[in-house]
Amino acid sequence: MQPDQNAFEQFSCPLPLTHNESIVIGHGSGGRMTHDLVKKVFYKHFSNPVLDAGNDFARVSSGQTSRGKGKIVLSTDCHIISPLFFPGGDIGRLAVCGTVNDVAMSGAQPLYITAGFIIEEGFSIEMLEKVVSSMSGAAQEANVLIVAGDTKVVEKGNADSLFITTTGIGWLEHDLDIAGDRAAPGDVVLISGTIGDHGVAVLTARNELGIETTVQSDVAPLNGMIDHLLQAAPHTHVLRDPTRGGLATTLNEIAAQSKVAIWIDEETVPILPEVRSVCELLGFDPLYMANEGKLVAIVPPEEADNALNAMRQHPYGKMAMRIGAVQPTPQNRVMAHTTSGATRILDMLSGEMLPRIC
Amino acid sequence: MQPDQNAFEQFSCPLPLTHNESIVIGHGSGGRMTHDLVKKVFYKHFSNPVLDAGNDFARVSSGQTSRGKGKIVLSTDCHIISPLFFPGGDIGRLAVCGTVNDVAMSGAQPLYITAGFIIEEGFSIEMLEKVVSSMSGAAQEANVLIVAGDTKVVEKGNADSLFITTTGIGWLEHDLDIAGDRAAPGDVVLISGTIGDHGVAVLTARNELGIETTVQSDVAPLNGMIDHLLQAAPHTHVLRDPTRGGLATTLNEIAAQSKVAIWIDEETVPILPEVRSVCELLGFDPLYMANEGKLVAIVPPEEADNALNAMRQHPYGKMAMRIGAVQPTPQNRVMAHTTSGATRILDMLSGEMLPRIC
Repeated sequence: MQPDQNAFEQFSCPLPLTHNESIVIGHGSGGRMTHDLVKKVFYKHFSNPVLDAGNDFARVSSGQTSRGKGKIVLSTDCHIISPLFFPGGDIGRLAVCGTVNDVAMSGAQPLYITAGFIIEEGFSIEMLEKVVSSMSGAAQEANVLIVAGDTKVVEKGNADSLFITTTGIGWLEHDLDIAGDRAAPGDVVLISGTIGDHGVAVLTARNELGIETTVQSDVAPLNGMIDHLLQAAPHTHVLRDPTRGGLATTLNEIAAQSKVAIWIDEETVPILPEVRSVCELLGFDPLYMANEGKLVAIVPPEEADNALNAMRQHPYGKMAMRIGAVQPTPQNRVMAHTTSGATRILDMLSGEMLPRIC
Repeated sequence: MQPDQNAFEQFSCPLPLTHNESIVIGHGSGGRMTHDLVKKVFYKHFSNPVLDAGNDFARVSSGQTSRGKGKIVLSTDCHIISPLFFPGGDIGRLAVCGTVNDVAMSGAQPLYITAGFIIEEGFSIEMLEKVVSSMSGAAQEANVLIVAGDTKVVEKGNADSLFITTTGIGWLEHDLDIAGDRAAPGDVVLISGTIGDHGVAVLTARNELGIETTVQSDVAPLNGMIDHLLQAAPHTHVLRDPTRGGLATTLNEIAAQSKVAIWIDEETVPILPEVRSVCELLGFDPLYMANEGKLVAIVPPEEADNALNAMRQHPYGKMAMRIGAVQPTPQNRVMAHTTSGATRILDMLSGEMLPRIC
């Protein structure tokens, strides 16, 4: 039951970030390198209480609107996924859902989206229209309006086809306080469905590995399911979508923000057999594979069954599972009971497993 | 006094946009090709009253906050400027100021900024920190908080160094109605200072043309000056910053939105001698050169002097000038009395003059 010494070293000794360094792909992984870069470059200069809270959303001005008393919530995401079209989705659906989800994970109702397009010269207008049409469909499904945009074009070879940056604005009712620092010992950890689908779908869509699967990306707007969840479990402490870096990285972020341990039982984590097979073949751990239509909910034990049932009754939460619990120790750590009965530390993703997954 | 027939043809016969077409650099010019693309692809799918208003900002939910009764204003901009550092500024200052200004042009007070970074593998972290530090300085100057961000990395060769997409959120007091469709015959047209500085500064920074100048980009946050302006001229009808496509394109947008004619006297438009020289040398018209720290104000005649004086008393408006007036005809047109006593149509920029200027 001793923690893996190497993992500890990896945890406590991230690569130093000096000024002689260059950006490497790992800085965009969403894992430890991204966290280091963000902390040492962005937070250093931009530090303010809203940003420093360390959530994927920002809760700002409070006030009273026709919707009642509350706060504005903001979130932004750049989308650089390759290929642009993959089984189950495309960059347009991803750009809308990713941002809708980040806003919704605060408990807020997403209302508006802005979209910035950086397009490579020579990109087909037909493809662009397919992407835009897909964004429109996702926005309708999520019940948000796309209210502002910008289009820039760069010379051929200076961007890869199309990048989309979306920003979401939502309205948070004043009595909700859902954030990464609210996980408390005793809380139950839930996942809304199978993990790794998006990662495997995009990976196989690249056709580089000679693998064919029928796995579809799970990319979906989760605000509707969250509405049901919060009605059933109004004291939910944390919601977060395990995108880049996967479930393990997301749980690490929450453990660190809340200064708790998160213990999961690996055998309870739902994984499609085909996803498991592809991961085994390629040596990937599904716990680190990206998801775009799943959420982690951390709820007080007395609301756990209601939360689970509420998710299971929603089309995007049919495979929801209880996967673990919050404990006091080892602080800031994610621990897994493995299927073989051992215990392992699940560290944050360190480098980069799959570049350009979202 | 006959309008230039070629310009009319150019105006009435934009290139057809079919599905066989590809994106060309001109689609990012901010001129007619951008407008056509936006209309035929983006508006087609995203159409809603907020977006269709056709401003650089979106006015959304209204409500009551500690700031009083009002509306949220949103704007987004992708920044792909090359080079990243230029006389008078850099992509970081540009990204903050550009978005602050778009929000401020609604009359709103910009409050929060989100920033998405797309970084090319191999980009220097020292350079990144310079950009981030510059953003921080611009945000402090503009009195806005950078509250949310995202960082993505693409492989070497799949982006050009660094792209930044910023989104701004502001608060608009309920009694202000400043928009592109409010220019009325009789209104006075003001410009806050010399035009073309940014375009010439970036152009010469590229070192491709063997031209050296001392011209600095005017990139600056204009919300402070707008506060003064609106105190002096509370019935201001239109504010807009003439960025991509320059003053001529911006005036065309306003003329079309308001269904009026805008007549300007070319000799009253302030242009630095060095900017004029570079433009003459290269065959560029300064009226189409990009600005990043200037605004057009269209105000009722009785408030014009007050508006002009208010701008001139601000550091960013010392060279403000009255440059023309709104008239009923020719509808949707911008007309210039030239220095030689002739009249010419100032059409919207058609293709692309200077790619990657912002």
